[in-house]
Amino acid sequence: MTMTLKMSWVASANSATTDFPLNNLPYGVFSLTASTPRCGVAIGDMILDVAACEEAGLITLEGGPLLQSGVWNPVMEAGAPVWSALRARLTELLAEGAADQAALAGHLVPMADAELHMPFTVSEYTDFYAGKNHAFNVGTMFRGAENALPANWLSIPIGYNGRASSVVVSGTPVTRPWGQLKGPNDALPRFDTSKRFDLELEFGAIVGTPSKGMVSVQEADDMIFGYVLLNDWSARDIQAWEYQPLGPFQAKATATTISPWIVAKAALEPFRTSTPERERPLLAYLTEPGPMLYDIALEVGLAPEGKGETIITRTNYAEMYYSAAQQLCHHTTSGCSMRTGDLLGSGTISGPTKDSRGSLLELSWGGKEPLTLDTGGTRSFLEDGDRLTLRGAAKGDGYRIGFGDCTGQIQPAIDLPAWAQEEN
Amino acid sequence: MTMTLKMSWVASANSATTDFPLNNLPYGVFSLTASTPRCGVAIGDMILDVAACEEAGLITLEGGPLLQSGVWNPVMEAGAPVWSALRARLTELLAEGAADQAALAGHLVPMADAELHMPFTVSEYTDFYAGKNHAFNVGTMFRGAENALPANWLSIPIGYNGRASSVVVSGTPVTRPWGQLKGPNDALPRFDTSKRFDLELEFGAIVGTPSKGMVSVQEADDMIFGYVLLNDWSARDIQAWEYQPLGPFQAKATATTISPWIVAKAALEPFRTSTPERERPLLAYLTEPGPMLYDIALEVGLAPEGKGETIITRTNYAEMYYSAAQQLCHHTTSGCSMRTGDLLGSGTISGPTKDSRGSLLELSWGGKEPLTLDTGGTRSFLEDGDRLTLRGAAKGDGYRIGFGDCTGQIQPAIDLPAWAQEEN
Repeated sequence: MTMTLKMSWVASANSATTDFPLNNLPYGVFSLTASTPRCGVAIGDMILDVAACEEAGLITLEGGPLLQSGVWNPVMEAGAPVWSALRARLTELLAEGAADQAALAGHLVPMADAELHMPFTVSEYTDFYAGKNHAFNVGTMFRGAENALPANWLSIPIGYNGRASSVVVSGTPVTRPWGQLKGPNDALPRFDTSKRFDLELEFGAIVGTPSKGMVSVQEADDMIFGYVLLNDWSARDIQAWEYQPLGPFQAKATATTISPWIVAKAALEPFRTSTPERERPLLAYLTEPGPMLYDIALEVGLAPEGKGETIITRTNYAEMYYSAAQQLCHHTTSGCSMRTGDLLGSGTISGPTKDSRGSLLELSWGGKEPLTLDTGGTRSFLEDGDRLTLRGAAKGDGYRIGFGDCTGQIQPAIDLPAWAQEEN
Repeated sequence: MTMTLKMSWVASANSATTDFPLNNLPYGVFSLTASTPRCGVAIGDMILDVAACEEAGLITLEGGPLLQSGVWNPVMEAGAPVWSALRARLTELLAEGAADQAALAGHLVPMADAELHMPFTVSEYTDFYAGKNHAFNVGTMFRGAENALPANWLSIPIGYNGRASSVVVSGTPVTRPWGQLKGPNDALPRFDTSKRFDLELEFGAIVGTPSKGMVSVQEADDMIFGYVLLNDWSARDIQAWEYQPLGPFQAKATATTISPWIVAKAALEPFRTSTPERERPLLAYLTEPGPMLYDIALEVGLAPEGKGETIITRTNYAEMYYSAAQQLCHHTTSGCSMRTGDLLGSGTISGPTKDSRGSLLELSWGGKEPLTLDTGGTRSFLEDGDRLTLRGAAKGDGYRIGFGDCTGQIQPAIDLPAWAQEEN
């Protein structure tokens, strides 16, 4: 499989630094001033209006039209043969020397002029806990290093159901949440704003084709349409008080931000890599028939309001202990149906070193070792006005496959409504 | 507010024993042979085809047509004024002496001829843990009586996100799940069928109007469209091994069965009752401005395959410590958006006595005290072929408000696929 740059007649795509060369062709939804959201594909610094292309007969898909709804779900549901056909046709249309350049040029819009929207409708959102360094770090803080990993962790891709209504696209402001908090020395809880609001650097897998009943790891991999960057914003103080015995709830329901571009599985194919050697053998149903992780370099920038950015972590999706395919397979073991648009968060991705940890909880070791920012000041957890940006790219020979920035700025908490104020 | 039987020209509705007198008018979806699912309203032993009534101009709703989609979500989303107008019009059409009887009679179909379907599209499903007796019983089994209630339980309506794709309508068979299991004395887990498959007797609240941001308990109560009976099937052995640290996942994803009829909040109005006195004062945001529980008698019948039914428990929704309105309010504290079609399970409803417990886990005390069935034999957990039926009714003066049976029969587990078999 080629890992070199494919040349396009869209000049800005022929660069080692663009996130969107012809090798990528990620799926997004955009609008121009006053237009309704439309399906588009990123190429260099332009967006191809594929809804218009379909209307003009330049793209014809089996079972179509599939590009007119303003979300990618119809294509996702159509299945792998349609995904391949669409990618092949897009490559043909945008490749150097393509026949239809004149017709297509009118359907290219500058990305700088476009607003980006949720690329798909999220059916349900499941978040996992499949980063071993993260699980070990968090476990060490809460239970000590000797009992850091839960007993089931090496056997089960641990996951919990999140809240689909909280998933938002990059750029959406994130408002600091209120919640029940109780300090370890407080007698009673109080209703207050979260003081330990955090990011979680994750990778999201999107289910394309639905399933009923148990599916194998291979079938699960085949069901996945593509991937996004994902920041699972987390209120650590709300979580600490609420999560026993049934898991995180409001601590994780404020927002989950995804990158605006869904990178197709096909674009990541050259970057497949294997999960690590097992410390405890997996049960047969979880064994992988081939490499199902991806080598994707990740970083997070934090910019205080009006100041420059500090890169607070650099890591790689290949650090995960379980792949999305293993997670999706496990998700179906009980007979749970999966649907087009289901989103699976990988779990926080932390590398083995201090500067590769995927959350402030770990980076500041629970607030005990605040980070120093390049622009001055420190951070234990997020402050109002902070802008967080996740970036990721698979790096080929002379090209990269990117996702676009996955960003969100922290807004101050809302004023407490009168009905929530204590009488004192 | 009247609590006597309202008379209808549909004779079978004028009875102290029907679930569906004119006072009720619950919302369902039905089909006859070869017809597509249609919105209907139960009256006595008949269903009024309200989709046909709307087409014929007998029912006109603001913003309509709202009854043609085969689910009740459009009405739910339309809001409380439409709910009131529809209920008033249905009462007018079906009351004794109504003017349009001849026109309506052609739109009544015998319930016995109809197949019932999911009455609404579930957006997201949240399950709570708000029954104090249940939490105390389970806590006692797992942690001893002195540490039975989690520290947060008297302050937070504890909840977790469930899986909407697993929600099915009464009558849908329920297949025993596979899953990872590990006995307390086993060194390693195995992949096996659940041996401790259980019911959970619950009450489900359905969100009608959506919200963004925090809502008060009163606003939450106003958002609720109606209620259903709910059985949250649970694999105790899968749960025991998977649930630390992030809560139940595959143990609760096999199926959740709801009753076929949504009983409108208005029909339950005469049966409002208060949550119990607080052992620990609630924070201001959770205090109720009025009674928000309901006096609804509940029972569960268990019939082994080919045998008669044993009533295994009798209890009441009024046993809950938190109302659905309190749960929904808490659900929004972090800024979590709620949507039309969100379903909130109350948590298992157990009374204070042994014969009023809402799960086999409690009834058989973790399997140590098997129940004796009326038809012979015992049960610690569910066996293949067992048919479970939840029933519920609010009891007025000479009438009852019922939900229809909420039933499901246990099918044997599927054969293990080849890819999940261990090499031995």
